[in-house]
Amino acid sequence: MISRIAAVQRELRSLDIPAVLVTNLSDVKYLSGFTGSTAYMLIDLEKAVFFTDGRYSIQSSEEVAENIVVEIVKDYSKIYTERCAAYKKILLQPSCSINISSKIASSGVEIYLDEKDFMQRLRMVKDNKEIAMIKEQYNLAGRAFLRSLKSFKYDTSEKSWAAALEYHMKMLGAKGESFETIVASGIRGAMPHGTASAKKITKGEPVIIDFGSKEQYTSDYTRMIYAGNDSEVLKVIDVVRSALEKSIENIEEGKLCGDIDNIARQYIEEQGYGAYFNHSLGHGVGIDVHELPVLKPKGDILLEDNMIFTIEPGIYLPDKFGVRLEQTVLINNGKPEIISSALDKYVYDIIE
Amino acid sequence: MISRIAAVQRELRSLDIPAVLVTNLSDVKYLSGFTGSTAYMLIDLEKAVFFTDGRYSIQSSEEVAENIVVEIVKDYSKIYTERCAAYKKILLQPSCSINISSKIASSGVEIYLDEKDFMQRLRMVKDNKEIAMIKEQYNLAGRAFLRSLKSFKYDTSEKSWAAALEYHMKMLGAKGESFETIVASGIRGAMPHGTASAKKITKGEPVIIDFGSKEQYTSDYTRMIYAGNDSEVLKVIDVVRSALEKSIENIEEGKLCGDIDNIARQYIEEQGYGAYFNHSLGHGVGIDVHELPVLKPKGDILLEDNMIFTIEPGIYLPDKFGVRLEQTVLINNGKPEIISSALDKYVYDIIE
Repeated sequence: MISRIAAVQRELRSLDIPAVLVTNLSDVKYLSGFTGSTAYMLIDLEKAVFFTDGRYSIQSSEEVAENIVVEIVKDYSKIYTERCAAYKKILLQPSCSINISSKIASSGVEIYLDEKDFMQRLRMVKDNKEIAMIKEQYNLAGRAFLRSLKSFKYDTSEKSWAAALEYHMKMLGAKGESFETIVASGIRGAMPHGTASAKKITKGEPVIIDFGSKEQYTSDYTRMIYAGNDSEVLKVIDVVRSALEKSIENIEEGKLCGDIDNIARQYIEEQGYGAYFNHSLGHGVGIDVHELPVLKPKGDILLEDNMIFTIEPGIYLPDKFGVRLEQTVLINNGKPEIISSALDKYVYDIIE
Repeated sequence: MISRIAAVQRELRSLDIPAVLVTNLSDVKYLSGFTGSTAYMLIDLEKAVFFTDGRYSIQSSEEVAENIVVEIVKDYSKIYTERCAAYKKILLQPSCSINISSKIASSGVEIYLDEKDFMQRLRMVKDNKEIAMIKEQYNLAGRAFLRSLKSFKYDTSEKSWAAALEYHMKMLGAKGESFETIVASGIRGAMPHGTASAKKITKGEPVIIDFGSKEQYTSDYTRMIYAGNDSEVLKVIDVVRSALEKSIENIEEGKLCGDIDNIARQYIEEQGYGAYFNHSLGHGVGIDVHELPVLKPKGDILLEDNMIFTIEPGIYLPDKFGVRLEQTVLINNGKPEIISSALDKYVYDIIE
């Protein structure tokens, strides 16, 4: 963990700012190893201090890395008005609330906004331990999906499938879902974020299932169920699959995220569905299920070894259906390695 | 929904500020009825505008209240740099990020921080529809708990119980958990936030289960399992139960939150366990599972009719065990009405 603190201190030195208040909980987890729900860190050139409250005194003593000073506080606001006030200047993260920044500013401290969000950029490139934990979540979630398929029945609700899938993820060791499970069947598939509803799934409808598990790290899959023969559905599935595969073939260290997005987007446009692909191509996966890099039009982050991110093109035809397919890729020695292959098909065909 | 927008506009008039940017998603949900994951609102004295992105174009058209203008945006940052720039002054919420506030400020708009967080105070007092939705979640979560008891087996993990309980909540209609389920058995009970782990539950250990369901509104319960006869455990359960009941008896419109906290805290101190009750007595429950009012030492919010909040004293003995019991109370015609009575016992005694 200490090399991470050292990386923060190196950044402080280069910015010529004596300290940073880490308010983003995922960053705190990354730096400290803590897994609870409330904590902050104040890092200067000499030391790193971790603050949490009495609910976490036992847990923080067990989890926080040894070279970090742990302090149990009764009143978090004293961190802002007293501890931060010991510095002339302080770096704050973009997600820091104005409630906190105004308290620090009122103590006479000069505030610098870390516009580049260097902590997010630090987390973008994973180390071997992180890669192993992420792969573990992908394996777990994939196995849970296969278990949920076995008990799936037509004419039951989207919600009941989501409940079963989430149950299997937890029984296999996940702490929970990395985001609200999407099960979008039939015309609901045209909603890219159609979380599981009470709607019953009918045989022959295309179904999008977008789900992931979470422990310390996360996973993210999209797969489809389709047992029908509608030529438009099959065509759109084919277009999305080709867009996905062409994007992955083009992934390479040194390329821009925007260029990868463009390959999928341009292909979908050429096929006549450009107006129906209305979100970014992909996003980084790590402690958070949405992190850097973002693969979007004009995305200016350069791909690097040990980045992990999703590729998930989609086509959504209002009042008809939707199709989205997703793989997750690790850049390994400059080349893409698919880490979501525990589910080796894109479209599962359930025949009851 | 419109009376809520009118309440916001009344507040703007009284502050003499022409507009507020609502960045807190739960507040956006409260004002608009939207249930998705990303949206903002800009409300001025004339109108309310709701912003979301293409992923939610169908959903927002179905959910957002009619008198609110819905706009689908490609780039949220234009809300800050262009739409907010139409005003000389703008009110921002305490939880607004400095990333957003700095973009608005750089457009030359004067920023006012809503230190009192009036939206939170508005949401503190529930209307009849909200009360009904919250009661529904309490009934649902209570029934799910009873179902999970039936399938519970000793010598299985805390996690497997949490998974079963969460499965039952979803099958009864919940969207998910209102927070990460706590199942803390034996010495893990001394961690007030001991989320379910791989530890196996042994017969005779005290177990704390703290859980809740979520749909548009939330619920929050703490119950215990104890089938043993240890005199210290029984004594501590008795102290916590008395602290809980004494607090509830004293709840009345017009009293201060701090006074209710003090009743439990003073009683626990008198019994010699003051050092082991290291968190607040309770918190409001609504769209968020933690909202105002907070019942804490010196809490200065006055209790009002139609507030809903938890009362959850606890005693945590390091390396031994913990006890926490919880009820949720609605202030109804000045008096406390317990809405968590779907589980009519504090301690459940499983005999296999």
